[in-house]
Parts: sequence; C-alpha cells; structure tokens
Amino acid sequence: MTDIDYARYDRIRPIRWTGDALELLDQRKLPFQTEYVSASTSDAVADAIHALIVRGAPAIGIAAAWGVVLAARDVDADNGVDALIKLEPAMQHLNAARPTAVNLAWALARMREVLHRAGDDWREVLKREARNIETEDLAANHEMGAMGAALIAPGSGVLTHCNTGSLATAGFGTALGVIRAGVAEERIARVFAGETRPWNQGARLTVWELQQDGIDATLIADAAASHLMKSGAVQWVVVGADRICANGDTANKIGTYQLAIAARHHGVKFMVVAPSSTVDMATASGDQIEIEERDPAELLSHRGERTVAEGIAAWNPVFDVTPHELIDAIVTERGVVERPDSMSMQVMFGPRFA
Amino acid sequence: MTDIDYARYDRIRPIRWTGDALELLDQRKLPFQTEYVSASTSDAVADAIHALIVRGAPAIGIAAAWGVVLAARDVDADNGVDALIKLEPAMQHLNAARPTAVNLAWALARMREVLHRAGDDWREVLKREARNIETEDLAANHEMGAMGAALIAPGSGVLTHCNTGSLATAGFGTALGVIRAGVAEERIARVFAGETRPWNQGARLTVWELQQDGIDATLIADAAASHLMKSGAVQWVVVGADRICANGDTANKIGTYQLAIAARHHGVKFMVVAPSSTVDMATASGDQIEIEERDPAELLSHRGERTVAEGIAAWNPVFDVTPHELIDAIVTERGVVERPDSMSMQVMFGPRFA
Repeated sequence: MTDIDYARYDRIRPIRWTGDALELLDQRKLPFQTEYVSASTSDAVADAIHALIVRGAPAIGIAAAWGVVLAARDVDADNGVDALIKLEPAMQHLNAARPTAVNLAWALARMREVLHRAGDDWREVLKREARNIETEDLAANHEMGAMGAALIAPGSGVLTHCNTGSLATAGFGTALGVIRAGVAEERIARVFAGETRPWNQGARLTVWELQQDGIDATLIADAAASHLMKSGAVQWVVVGADRICANGDTANKIGTYQLAIAARHHGVKFMVVAPSSTVDMATASGDQIEIEERDPAELLSHRGERTVAEGIAAWNPVFDVTPHELIDAIVTERGVVERPDSMSMQVMFGPRFA
Repeated sequence: MTDIDYARYDRIRPIRWTGDALELLDQRKLPFQTEYVSASTSDAVADAIHALIVRGAPAIGIAAAWGVVLAARDVDADNGVDALIKLEPAMQHLNAARPTAVNLAWALARMREVLHRAGDDWREVLKREARNIETEDLAANHEMGAMGAALIAPGSGVLTHCNTGSLATAGFGTALGVIRAGVAEERIARVFAGETRPWNQGARLTVWELQQDGIDATLIADAAASHLMKSGAVQWVVVGADRICANGDTANKIGTYQLAIAARHHGVKFMVVAPSSTVDMATASGDQIEIEERDPAELLSHRGERTVAEGIAAWNPVFDVTPHELIDAIVTERGVVERPDSMSMQVMFGPRFA
C-alpha cells in the first residue's frame, strides 16, 4: 500500500448533514446541474431514495440513517426502546424505498440496535450512529481501494459499470475507490465505463465524477464491452454490489452478469467491491434475491420526452445476479475473498444465520 | 413451410424509386415522423447512406444501385464500357459511404458487371439491374424467413438486436423476416428486442416496425439480455449480418458478439440471417474485417443535446465480429449452414477466391 492523496482523488460528496436537514446532491440532474435537495423529514428522505435523487447501495444506507434522525424530531419518547416503537413506521417507510440493496436494511438495523440500548440521550445516540455509519463507510472504501488495487498488475486496463464512486457512498467509492487507488498507484493505465442503460449512471455520473478528480475514462456502449475485452484493452472488470449472498452470488446493476460472462469468456478477471454491510449471510444464494423492476418508462423516454413509439412494452429489471463461479475476487474492508463460494465466504464473514 | 400472408406482416418500404429520384424513408426521424427524403443525385444517395437516413446492409446496397442509375444521368456514353469508366468516380463515392457492409460493394459490382456487357441501352440495363437487386432481395427474405422459422420450435421466445426488418431491406427483413415468419406460423410466442445503443435501432425502429404489422415485441436494455436468457424466456437469438466471412465469422451491429457469448453460456441458440450477398468468401476470417468506428458524439448526446459532461472521451465501434464457433445456424436464401466453419461454408457458397 502506498500513501494515496485522498483529497486529490476524491472531491465529491453526495450527502451533507447540516445539523437540522439532510442535503442530497440531486443525481438525476448531473452532470449539468450540481444541485443539492434539502430533506427535512424522513418521508422526504424515503422519497429521495425512491426517486433516485440519492442512489448507490452505501449512500442509500447513510441517507436512511439520517432519515431516522429526522424522524426522531417528531417523536416524544423517554428512552430508546420507547423511541424505537414510535420510530418503526418511519423506518419501515424508509426500508421500502428500494428493495434490492441490503445496505438500507442494514443501516436501519444498526439504528434500531443502538436505540435498544439508549436511555434518555437516544436522540444523540441516533445522530452519533448515523455519523458513524458515514465515517466508517468512507474508511472502508479507503481500505478496499488499497486491497483491490493490490490485485491489479501495473499497466492494466479496467472496465466498470454503473456508478460506485463518491456519489454512491460516503466518499471515494467501492469499485471506483479501487480504480482511484489503482490510478494513484499507477497500476491502472486505462479506465473504461459502460453507459449503464437505462439510467445512464456510467455516462452521466461515473465519467463526470472521475473527471472532477482528473482521472481520464473512456465511455462505451454497454454492448461494446465484449468487443473491448477481445481487443485486450482491459484486464479487470471492477464493479460494486447491492447484495452479496452467503455463497458469493452478487446482485448488482443490470448488465453486471453479462459483463461477468464476457469476462470469463475472454480470460478477463472480475472483481466485486463492496463494504461488508452489503454481505447478506442470511440469503443463501442469488436465486432468493428479489430483483427490483422499475417503470418501463425509463426505457421509453429521455428526460420526459418519448423516444419509443406509443404502445410499446418494455421490461426493465434494474439488477441481475452474477453467480459466484464467475467472480474472481470479492473485496470488502474485512479482506479479499478469492474465488468466492459458501466455504470461503463463511471463513470471512462467519456462519450463515439463515 | 406454410403459406404466409406477406401483405399482412410487411407494410413498410424504406426505398421508393419514382422514375427520376430515389425516395428514402428518413430513419433518423422514426418512429415519430414518417418522412421520405428525395435524392436526385448519386452524391445525395451517398450522403444519405453515410448519414444513416437509409441503413441496414441490404437496403444500403439497393440504395447504392439506384444511386448509380442517378449518376448515369450526368454521363454521356455510347456503350456500357464507356459508361463504366465515366461512372467509376460516382461508384467509388457510393462505396466509401459505409466501410463494413459488404452488400454495398456487392451491389456496385453487379452494376459494373451488367455495364460491361451493355451496349447503347446501358441506361436501361442499369435500371433493370437496380430493380432486380431490389426484387431479388425481397424474394430472398421470404425464403430465409421460411427456412429460419423452420428451425424454431413452437412456443419459443426470440431476442433480436438492431433492426433487420423491412426498414433494412427491400422488405420483410432478414432476422426480422424469420421472426415475422415464425410469428405467422405460430412458432414464436415471445419477441424481445434490445435497444441497440448508441443509435437505438431496436428501440426506435424494430419495435415500431413490428407494431405496424401487429406483432408484439418487448424492448429491453442491451445489458439485460443475459438476465433475460437466464429466465428461460428466449430459446433463440436471431440477428442479421453486415459481412459473413469464408469461415462463418460474422460482422454485425455492436453488441451481437456479446449476445452470442451470452447465448452459448445459457444454451440459447444463435442464428444469423442474411442474403448470400452478405457472404464474403474473399475474406478468410473476422480478423480481416475493418470495423467502422463512428463519431463518439453518438454516445455523448441525444438529438443534438449533450447528455455527457464536456471533455469526456468515448469509443464508438459500431460493429463487432461474432466468431463462427458461437453461431448455430447461418440462414441465406441458398439454404441453412448449421455449425458454420470454412468447410460447411465452402460447400454452400463455393471455394474462396481470396
């Protein structure tokens, strides 16, 4: 591990707690407008998560934790257990905002846990825990960046998908954190990003975010990934995760599975980078993951303007599952699991509690 | 083969010869405007091909043939050989409009060949040959439709890519012709079409074209294809071709190669449908095909409006090569080549003349 100048390679923050409101960088408007939306209620936070104002599994968890802090302002309670009961509807509403990412449920579980033990200082305890979730996420990303980059040979090219950067986390990013670290350490010579249809996180967010930090990235159509791999320009595909199962099966943005198949076909390595909060040892395999399907309109229009003829049907699953057999390494802040399976996952993350 | 009601399943024509001009359906404006552009010079036809007003390998060949007829009006010649020399600059200009599709060169070669043998009726000979190229293409598509559909078991789902329909040919289509025939014969129960970034031929053209003929198709993001295959909803991927090599390697729209890899991974069959004019026995394998790269702006903007931050680089290859090992059947009007390789291709198409 070399010392990375984090300030140089990490300038964006998607979530800001002002003390009495949560400011969220409206990721629907990037890259042309950098506009923060202020949420002062937990319902407003839930709506922002559902509307993709804030997105990315870790960022959603952090936003939800601050949402609980906001909900606490409307609750009168003498102790944590009392508050817990009264906050439950707000937490359930937050939890329902996105079904696939496990970090959301994980962050809410942490908030519940500290409430259980809190006395009359429960409001302060909640605030501290939300802050902890945020700072731990940033620290985890720095650790994962160094560990993931260490797997990449100098002079390599990488391809990433969706946005897993500062915008999707408390900062630095998961897969993009590995890419930031790899570029800083001069291991990564070429960065490619897929558009990531239909929401274009790669086109709108990833290449912009890297540009802010002076990292050159080349945009490609999602469908050009195999042609790129065949050219020899990339040695690793590096992606994030929304949920990692007990056997290593990984749910992530639609298209990830296809990249993993293509990577294996070409002898390109495939790395998943996510905080351990994304690991869900209670879910045995990817078959048990609920895949969120969003409004077909996302495929049928662009900025509210229709792009496809009226009356056309579209199928819009926004995640898919990459089976563990196609994954070469899962990187979390706890360490690297190479060739993940139920056994190696259990060694790293403890027994399944399903 | 059952009798297919072609009139019912084939209503669109992209190319109309009026007697003194070529009318081209402007495919850049579909599906919201159905507008024909009139080209009265061969340069205007070349420009229309380059600008994607007319697109699809067979349609490009047909348009180029009519382009030669238009060029003939500016040429004074006593016989075909004299005309051939004088028409050469116009033909070279037409040929340069798109580099990957072999049909363009093939159609021009046919026009040259008839000129060689023509006397003072060379203008009439050229017109007749352009008309022949067009009517033969439609007939070939009807034959391929029947032969390709016969490979598909009743109750199957199919996935297609790009647009290979009436819009891309003299009518009926190549891969879409197989789908039309398969639907008419009640073999195909489900049709899916990929968006086909960056030009969105699938989203703008294919689903619209099928809708005109009363065929339901569901649009998906290109990156969702593997997830779709895993669901069991599709049994065949059916695509067209821009160039088929002597060993069966096939150049087609970017993303085709990725679909072929995914299809093989899932045990889904992969069919290429193209007229024999697309077969290029002078090119031994896909490694020798020049892959057209178009303006990165196609990935960076939508209808002239910037969608990606300024200063971002993009890589925009618009074709890729699917190796013959991943192809289960190549269907041309001459017959079906199953598991194509140099040997089976030579049996169907004669010896390589490289």
